[in-house]
Amino acid sequence: MPEALRLGVAGVGTVGASLVRLFERHGNELAVRAGRPLAITAISTRDRTRNRGVDLSGMRWFEDPTALARDPDTDVFVELIGGEEGPARAAVFAAIESGKHVVTANKALLAAHGNELARAVEAAGVSLNFEAAAAGGIPVIKTLREALAGNTVSRIYGILNGTCNYILSRMESEPVSFDDCLADAQRLGYAEADPTFDIEGYDAAHKLALLTSIAFGSEIDKSSIYVEGITSVTQADIAAADELGYRIRLLGVASRTESGIEQRVHLAMVPKSSMIARVEGVTNAVAIEADFVGGLVLTGPGAGGDATASSVASDILDLARGDRVGTLGRPASSLEPYRRAAMRRHEGGYYVRLSVYDRPGAFAAIAARMAEAGISLESIVQRSRRPRTSAPDHAEPEAPQPVVMITYETTETAIRDALEAIGRDGHIAVAPQMIRIERL
Amino acid sequence: MPEALRLGVAGVGTVGASLVRLFERHGNELAVRAGRPLAITAISTRDRTRNRGVDLSGMRWFEDPTALARDPDTDVFVELIGGEEGPARAAVFAAIESGKHVVTANKALLAAHGNELARAVEAAGVSLNFEAAAAGGIPVIKTLREALAGNTVSRIYGILNGTCNYILSRMESEPVSFDDCLADAQRLGYAEADPTFDIEGYDAAHKLALLTSIAFGSEIDKSSIYVEGITSVTQADIAAADELGYRIRLLGVASRTESGIEQRVHLAMVPKSSMIARVEGVTNAVAIEADFVGGLVLTGPGAGGDATASSVASDILDLARGDRVGTLGRPASSLEPYRRAAMRRHEGGYYVRLSVYDRPGAFAAIAARMAEAGISLESIVQRSRRPRTSAPDHAEPEAPQPVVMITYETTETAIRDALEAIGRDGHIAVAPQMIRIERL
Repeated sequence: MPEALRLGVAGVGTVGASLVRLFERHGNELAVRAGRPLAITAISTRDRTRNRGVDLSGMRWFEDPTALARDPDTDVFVELIGGEEGPARAAVFAAIESGKHVVTANKALLAAHGNELARAVEAAGVSLNFEAAAAGGIPVIKTLREALAGNTVSRIYGILNGTCNYILSRMESEPVSFDDCLADAQRLGYAEADPTFDIEGYDAAHKLALLTSIAFGSEIDKSSIYVEGITSVTQADIAAADELGYRIRLLGVASRTESGIEQRVHLAMVPKSSMIARVEGVTNAVAIEADFVGGLVLTGPGAGGDATASSVASDILDLARGDRVGTLGRPASSLEPYRRAAMRRHEGGYYVRLSVYDRPGAFAAIAARMAEAGISLESIVQRSRRPRTSAPDHAEPEAPQPVVMITYETTETAIRDALEAIGRDGHIAVAPQMIRIERL
Repeated sequence: MPEALRLGVAGVGTVGASLVRLFERHGNELAVRAGRPLAITAISTRDRTRNRGVDLSGMRWFEDPTALARDPDTDVFVELIGGEEGPARAAVFAAIESGKHVVTANKALLAAHGNELARAVEAAGVSLNFEAAAAGGIPVIKTLREALAGNTVSRIYGILNGTCNYILSRMESEPVSFDDCLADAQRLGYAEADPTFDIEGYDAAHKLALLTSIAFGSEIDKSSIYVEGITSVTQADIAAADELGYRIRLLGVASRTESGIEQRVHLAMVPKSSMIARVEGVTNAVAIEADFVGGLVLTGPGAGGDATASSVASDILDLARGDRVGTLGRPASSLEPYRRAAMRRHEGGYYVRLSVYDRPGAFAAIAARMAEAGISLESIVQRSRRPRTSAPDHAEPEAPQPVVMITYETTETAIRDALEAIGRDGHIAVAPQMIRIERL
C-alpha cells in the first residue's frame, strides 16, 4: 500500500468547507480511485472556532498559512484563501519552495503570477493544479492541458462570469433595468456588495488570461486583454437584439490572428441558434475551436462552493495518482511570449444604437459618416415615436429617436472613427451604444 | 532526456490516417508537452500500398496485428481495427499479455469484454485508454474517470449517435420522411450501407454501457440495456412534439434508482429549452448530473477521423507523461456487479399517438383504459380531419383520426398495460406510438 497523501488546506470559507464535506462523504471512494489513502490532515484559518457545518477537529491547525505551506508533514498545499497578493501568494511560493505540490482555485493569483509560478514549480520538481480557477466546476483546464493536447486551437470563447450572465439573461426574460437586476443578483448572493470586479469584466478577464495561455502556448498576459463591462446594456439593446435574431452575452474571446493573439472581454451579440446563446442564469460555458477536434462546448456551474470543490478534488486526485501535467500544459521554457493583436485591428460586424435628434438631415449626416469610414450597413431600424400624422411641432421639438444599425464586416478602427465623427456632428443625444457581433 | 515512446498502430483506415497526419503536424508539440519524444514507429494494415494521403514509409510494417502487439520494439499498442471479436480482440489481449499499454477507439470490444480487459491490464501492470470509444472527440471518459472523481453521479444521458441525431433534427427542419432522411444520411456518409447498428440504437447502447460503468462504478453490462431504435418516428410525432414544446431525440440514459441502475436507449421527448434539444445534426452531447458539481453538458463531434484521432492522441499523451488511471476509473476488483433496474419500473411521463377509428364510443373506451391503468392525462389533442359541418356518412366511414395524449408521471408497466388493452379493444388502426418524456 503506497503512503497516504496528506493535504493541508489554507482557507476554510465556502469552498474549503465544501471540500471538507466532499472528503467526509467521498474520501473512501477517492482513496479507492487513487489506489492510496488521502486525507485533509491540516488546515489554516483565521478563526478556528467558527461553525462551518463540518468537523475540523481531527485536523492540525495553523494560524499562518505560510507555516502550513512549510509544514514537513503536509504533502499537498491546497490554497483557498484567494487574492492576487498577500498571504495567498506568500504561502503558495513557500509551499513550492519547500517541495510541495500545490492546488489552488485562485484565478487572480494565477493571472498575475502564473508565468513565475510555472517556472517555480518546474524548478522545484512539483506540480501546480488549478482546475477551479477558470469556469468553476467545468473541467476546461483538464480539457485544454490534456484532452486537446494533439490540437492547435484557433479560438476559445465563453461565458466566464455567472453574475453578468444572470443579469443579461434575466433582462431578456423580464423588462427589468440593469440596476434592478444587479440589486437582485446581490440579494441572491450572485453578486458581491461591490460588484465592480464582476460587472466590469475583470473576473472574466482573469479566467480568459489563463485559458489563452494554455490554449495557445503563450505566456499569461492579463494586462493585454481588451476589457469592457456590461453596465451600458439597456432593455432597448435586449429588445433590438431579440428582433435581429441575437442574444447579448458577456463573452471572453481569445483567437489566433495574423498579427498575434487577440484577447477581449466585452458584450457580444450571439446568434440565438448558437449553444452559447442558450446559456442562462449563473451557468458558465466554454467553446473551443481546434484543428483536429473541430468544436467542443462545455457547460456547467462557474461558481459555488460544491462545484468548485469538485474541481479541487479532481486536482488532488490527479496528484495522488502521480499524474503530472505542466502548469500551463507544457514546460514553462517552451511558452512563447504573448504577442498581442491590436484591438483596433479586430474585424467583425457591429450593432450600433444611436439616440438621434429628430431634425432634417440628421440621419443623412450619420449615414454619410458611416460611408466615409467605409462601413456598409446590413440593416437599419428607425422607428419614430411620433405618430405619422403629427407634424414635428406637435411633438417635443427634436426629441431624440432610437436608430439601430447592423454593419457588415468592418474594422474596430473604422467603427470607432465613424462613431467619433457622428458624436462631433451633434445629432445624437447621448453617447452611442456599440456591441460587437460574434461569428459563432 | 527520457526514452522515446514507440507507438504501434493497428488499422490505418480513416481514423488511423488522421492519427498519422496528427503526428506529422503536431508530433513535435506532443513531444514538448510530454517531455519526451514519441512517434508512430510501426503499423499493421492488410494493404500496405493503398494511398491514404499520409507517409507511412518510415514505419515498420506488420501484416498480422497480433505480431505488432507482441513486437518487443513497441511500447504502446494503438488498436484502430474495430470489431468485438476477431483480430482486434486477439491483438489487444496479446499486447496486454506482452506488457504493453493499449489505446483503442473500439467501443464494441470494450462493451463486450471491458470487464475482462480491465482485470487483464491490472494484472499486467499496464494501462488501457479509450477516450475515442464513447462520443468521439468529446472528452467524456476523462471527465468521468478524472474530473468528476470526487462526485457521486446520479444520472448520465446524452445524444450518443450522430446518424440518428442527423435524421431526427433534419426531420424537424424539413417535412421529409424517415426513409428519405436515412437515404440522405447514407449518401452523405453519415450512415452505413446497412444502418441497423445505428438506427436500432445498438451503437448508442455500446457507448452507454461504457459511460454507465465509469459513472456508477459498476461492471459493464451491455446486455441489460433496454434498447429501442428510431425507425418508428414520423412527421406526425415531430409536429406534435413541436406543438407541445418538445423535440424528439434518441437518448442514452443511465440513472441510479432505488432498485438498481437503469440503462436505456430510446426516443425521448426533451423540452425545447434544454441544452440537449439544441444539439443538431451529427453532433453528440453528454450531460452528467452529480452531487458536488451539479450538472455538466459536453457537446462536440461524436465521430469522424480527425475528431477521433484527437481523442486517441490525448490517450497516448497521457501514457507518454506516465499518467495511469484505472480502466473504468477504479481498480477492477472494486467495481460492483451491475444491478439492473427493471425497465417496467421506469417512471415518467409518456407521449402516446393513436390512430383512432372515428366511431361513437371509441375515444371513451380509450380514456377508460387509461383510467383503469391509473394513468392521468395532462393533455389530449384530437383534431378531426372531418369538417365540422359534415355528418360522418359524408366522410370515409370510420376513417382513423390521430389522437395525441401526454400522460402525467406513471410507470412503464401501467402505460404498456393500457396500450395493450387499447389495442385489444379494436378501436385503433395501427399499433400505438409511445415516446417517453425525459425530465431534464
